Amino acid sequence: MNHRMIIQTVGRIAQAEAALLLLPALVSLCYRESCGWSFLITIALCLIVGFAMTTLSHPRTDLIYAREGFAIVSFGWLMTSALGALPFFLSREIPSYIDAFFETVSGFTTTGASILTDVEALSHGLLFWRSFTHWVGGMGVLVFVMALLPSLSDRSIHIVRAEMPGPVVGKLVPRVRDTAKILYIIYIVITLIQIGFLLTGGMPLYDSVIHAFGTAGTGGFGIKADSIAGYSPYLQWVIAIFMLIFGVNFNLYYLLLIRRFRTVIKSDELWSYTAIVIISSLVITFNILPQTSGFGEALRLAVFQVSSIITTTGYVTTDFNLWPGLSKAILLLLMFIGGCAGSTAGGLKMSRAIMLVKMIGREFKRMLHPRSVSTVRFEGKTVDEQTLGSVSTYFSVYMICILAVFLLISFEPFDFETNFTATVTCFNNVGPGFSAVGPAGNFSAFTGFSKLILSFAMLLGRLEIFPLILIFAPTARIKH
Amino acid sequence: MNHRMIIQTVGRIAQAEAALLLLPALVSLCYRESCGWSFLITIALCLIVGFAMTTLSHPRTDLIYAREGFAIVSFGWLMTSALGALPFFLSREIPSYIDAFFETVSGFTTTGASILTDVEALSHGLLFWRSFTHWVGGMGVLVFVMALLPSLSDRSIHIVRAEMPGPVVGKLVPRVRDTAKILYIIYIVITLIQIGFLLTGGMPLYDSVIHAFGTAGTGGFGIKADSIAGYSPYLQWVIAIFMLIFGVNFNLYYLLLIRRFRTVIKSDELWSYTAIVIISSLVITFNILPQTSGFGEALRLAVFQVSSIITTTGYVTTDFNLWPGLSKAILLLLMFIGGCAGSTAGGLKMSRAIMLVKMIGREFKRMLHPRSVSTVRFEGKTVDEQTLGSVSTYFSVYMICILAVFLLISFEPFDFETNFTATVTCFNNVGPGFSAVGPAGNFSAFTGFSKLILSFAMLLGRLEIFPLILIFAPTARIKH
Repeated sequence: MNHRMIIQTVGRIAQAEAALLLLPALVSLCYRESCGWSFLITIALCLIVGFAMTTLSHPRTDLIYAREGFAIVSFGWLMTSALGALPFFLSREIPSYIDAFFETVSGFTTTGASILTDVEALSHGLLFWRSFTHWVGGMGVLVFVMALLPSLSDRSIHIVRAEMPGPVVGKLVPRVRDTAKILYIIYIVITLIQIGFLLTGGMPLYDSVIHAFGTAGTGGFGIKADSIAGYSPYLQWVIAIFMLIFGVNFNLYYLLLIRRFRTVIKSDELWSYTAIVIISSLVITFNILPQTSGFGEALRLAVFQVSSIITTTGYVTTDFNLWPGLSKAILLLLMFIGGCAGSTAGGLKMSRAIMLVKMIGREFKRMLHPRSVSTVRFEGKTVDEQTLGSVSTYFSVYMICILAVFLLISFEPFDFETNFTATVTCFNNVGPGFSAVGPAGNFSAFTGFSKLILSFAMLLGRLEIFPLILIFAPTARIKH
Repeated sequence: MNHRMIIQTVGRIAQAEAALLLLPALVSLCYRESCGWSFLITIALCLIVGFAMTTLSHPRTDLIYAREGFAIVSFGWLMTSALGALPFFLSREIPSYIDAFFETVSGFTTTGASILTDVEALSHGLLFWRSFTHWVGGMGVLVFVMALLPSLSDRSIHIVRAEMPGPVVGKLVPRVRDTAKILYIIYIVITLIQIGFLLTGGMPLYDSVIHAFGTAGTGGFGIKADSIAGYSPYLQWVIAIFMLIFGVNFNLYYLLLIRRFRTVIKSDELWSYTAIVIISSLVITFNILPQTSGFGEALRLAVFQVSSIITTTGYVTTDFNLWPGLSKAILLLLMFIGGCAGSTAGGLKMSRAIMLVKMIGREFKRMLHPRSVSTVRFEGKTVDEQTLGSVSTYFSVYMICILAVFLLISFEPFDFETNFTATVTCFNNVGPGFSAVGPAGNFSAFTGFSKLILSFAMLLGRLEIFPLILIFAPTARIKH
C-alpha cells in the first residue's frame, strides 16, 4: 500500500479545509462575533497538520489503487470531521467535543441530525459553518479537493469511486479532474439559482444562503427551531422543488448541457424517482387531510415532507411524527430508498432499488424456468452480472449494518421507535426520525457512546460502507 | 400448465386433511366435548371437496414442472387453512371466521401468533387440533401427503422444492417419496422422545403431546395463558433443548443414522447455529441479571427465549417485552435469522445468512482487487453462482416483502413497535413480537383486513415467498 501517498493526500485535504474555514471566519467577522477566534485557531491547526503531512511524506510513486482510494477517502473524512468540529468546541457554543464531532459528521455527511436543543442560540458564523459542511460534503470533500488541486494523477478515479455514491461511477469526460470541475460548476450554478428564488420570496440573504447550502447538499441543517415551517408557502415550495432537483443524478444535468435530451427523458432512474414522489405525496395528502385546513395545505405538507425525506434532506414544515401510521410508514420506506445515484442524496439510491426489483423479477422467471437465461436492463443498457451481484450484496451488507448499528445503540433507554428510526435516519443521512428523534426532538439525550456509533453510521451511509470497513482489512493479504 | 394435475393433487390434500382431523375428533370424543360435531362436519366437507376434485379432474399426463409445484403448494396451503379453520368457527369457540382463519394459518405455518384473549377457555379437542396443525405444517403438508400416497410420480421433487424451506433442496435418497418417509420417521421419533422426557418431568400426557407438537413444528401454540412459564425448570429446559433440536437441518439426523458423523461435525450451519445460540444466551443472561433472582434463573430465561426465538417457535417463560433494549434488539435480530434450512423453523434460515456473510466478504475482496476471482464455500462445497444470486435476491425480496406488509398494516392505530414487530414475527413465523403483540399480548385487536394481510405474510414466510407470488404470474408468458 502506498502509505506516503495516502498521508500526503489527506494532508492536502487538511489544507483545503483551512481554505473552506475562511468563509465562516469572514462571516463571523462581518457579524463581529467572538467565535471568529475559534475559526482562526482551527485554520492554523489545519495548516500545521496539512503542512506536516504533505512535506514530511514524499511518495516514491503517485500510483494509487482501489485500496489507497478507500484509505484516502476514509481517513480524509474522519480527519475533516475531527478538525471541523473544533470551531464549535473551541467557541464553547457546543461544550462537549463528542457533540461537536457528531454535529460536524452530521454536517459533512449531509445528514442534518442535530444534538442542539436550541439552534437559534448559535452565532451566525458557526451556523454558517454548520450549513457550509452540508454543501461541501454533498458533492464530496475529495471531489472538491480534486477540482481545485492540479497535482493528483488521473488514477484518482479510485478516489472518486470510493467517495461517489451509487452502484456505478462513470467519468463524464476522460479526465477525472475535469469531471470534478464540471460537477462542481453545475452544483454552484443550481445553488445560486436557488438563492435567487429564495431572495425573490423575501427571505433574507443570510437565511437564503444557509438554506441553499442545506438544500443543495440534501443536508437539512437550518437556523430556526421549527426548520422551514415559519417561512411562507412560496418559500416552502421553492425549497421542496430544489430538494427534488438536488436528488437527481447530476450526470443528467451534464447531459442536458450537451443537449442529449433523449437520454435524459429515457432515464429509468428519473422516471421511477418522479413516480415515487408523486404517488407518495398523493397518498399522504389524502391520509393527512383531516389534520389540515384543506387540500392545498395537505398537498404542500405532503410534497415538502416527501421531497425532504426521499432526498434525505431532512427539512420539515410540520411534525410528521404526529401523522397517521400509514404516512409515517411511507416516510420510513422513502428513507431507505433515498435519492438518485450521482446526486447529493443518501439512502440506498434509486438505481440500486430499481436493479433490485428487476433482479427479483428475473428470479421469479428463473424459478419457473430453471434453464432460462435473461438479462437485466437499466438506462437502456444490459447490466453486467458482476454489477448486479454487487448491488444485491450491497443491499445485504446495508441491511446488516443497519441492524448492527441498531443493536449497538439499543443500550439506550429510549423506546423502540426512537432507537430504530435514529439508526435508519442516520445511516441513510436523512436527519429526523420518529418519536424522540422526530422533527420536534433531537439527538442530545443519547449517550456519548451512541453518538459516536451514530456518527460512524452516518459516515458508513455517506461513503457506502465499503471504504470505512476496508481500512481495517489486514494488509498482509493484499497483493497487486 | 397442467391444471388438472394441480386440481387432483389439491383434492388429495383435502382428503388427507380429513384423515388428520380424525385425531382431534377422537380427542373431543374422549373428553365428551360438543366440538366433536364441528370436526365431523369439517371431515365430511373435506371428503366431499377432495372427492369432487380428484374424481372430476382427470389429468392427461402426470408431468409437473416448477410452476405446477408452486401452484399445488400455494393452493394446497390456502385450502388446508381455509378448511382447517372450520372447526373453530363451527363450534363458535372462535366466532369470527377471519379470526379462525388467522389462527389456523398461524398453526399450519408454525407461527404461533394468536387472536385468542383466553386460550384456556378453548375445549381440549380444538386445542389439540390447533397444536396438531403445527406438527403437520412443520414438516410440510405436501411432504406428508407424499409420504402417504403412492401415486405421485417422482417429478414431485418440484412440490418438495416449493414447500421445503432453505436455499437448496436435496433428496436424501433417490426417490422423493422415500425421502419424505425418512423425514417423517425421524420427525415422529424425536417427537416421541420429547413426549417421553416431558412425561418423566411430571407433565400430564395431554399437555406433553400438545407441547411436543408445538416444539416439533417450532410453532409455539400452548394451552396456558402464561405459555410455558408455569411449568417446572426441568420441563422448561427440556422444551428449550428440543426447540433447538427441531431447529437443526433434518438431513443431519439422517446423516447420523447412516453413520456419516464427520459430515455432521463439519457442518458450517450447525456450528454457526450453535455459536449464535450460545453467544446470544450469554449476552442476554448478563443483560437481564438485575431483573432476575440470580444467574441460574437468568441463564434459564435467556436460553429458553433465545432457543424459542431463533427456532421461531414462540414459546415464552417470561415477558421479554419488559427486558432491556439490548436483549430485545438481540431477539429481534434472531427473528430475522431463524433456524437451519431443512428444519421446521422459519426465518431467513441460517444457511442463507452464512452465504450472505460470505458473499459480503467476497465483495470486500473484490472491491480491493477488481480482477480477482474467488468462490464461496459452504458445507465443504463450492456454491455455484446461480445459487448465490438466488440467495441474495431472496434476501432482497424478503426485506421488501416485510416492508410492504408493514406498510399495509400501518393503517392500524398501534405504536410503531407493535406494527413493526407484528410484521416481523408473522413473516418469520415466530409468534410473539413486542409491545401490544408481546408475550403478554395477542393479535385480537387488529382489524380483519390486517389479520388477512398478516395471514398472507405468515404463508409468504412459510413457503418462502415465491410459490405464492408466482401463482399470480401471467400464464401466457410461460413456455416450457
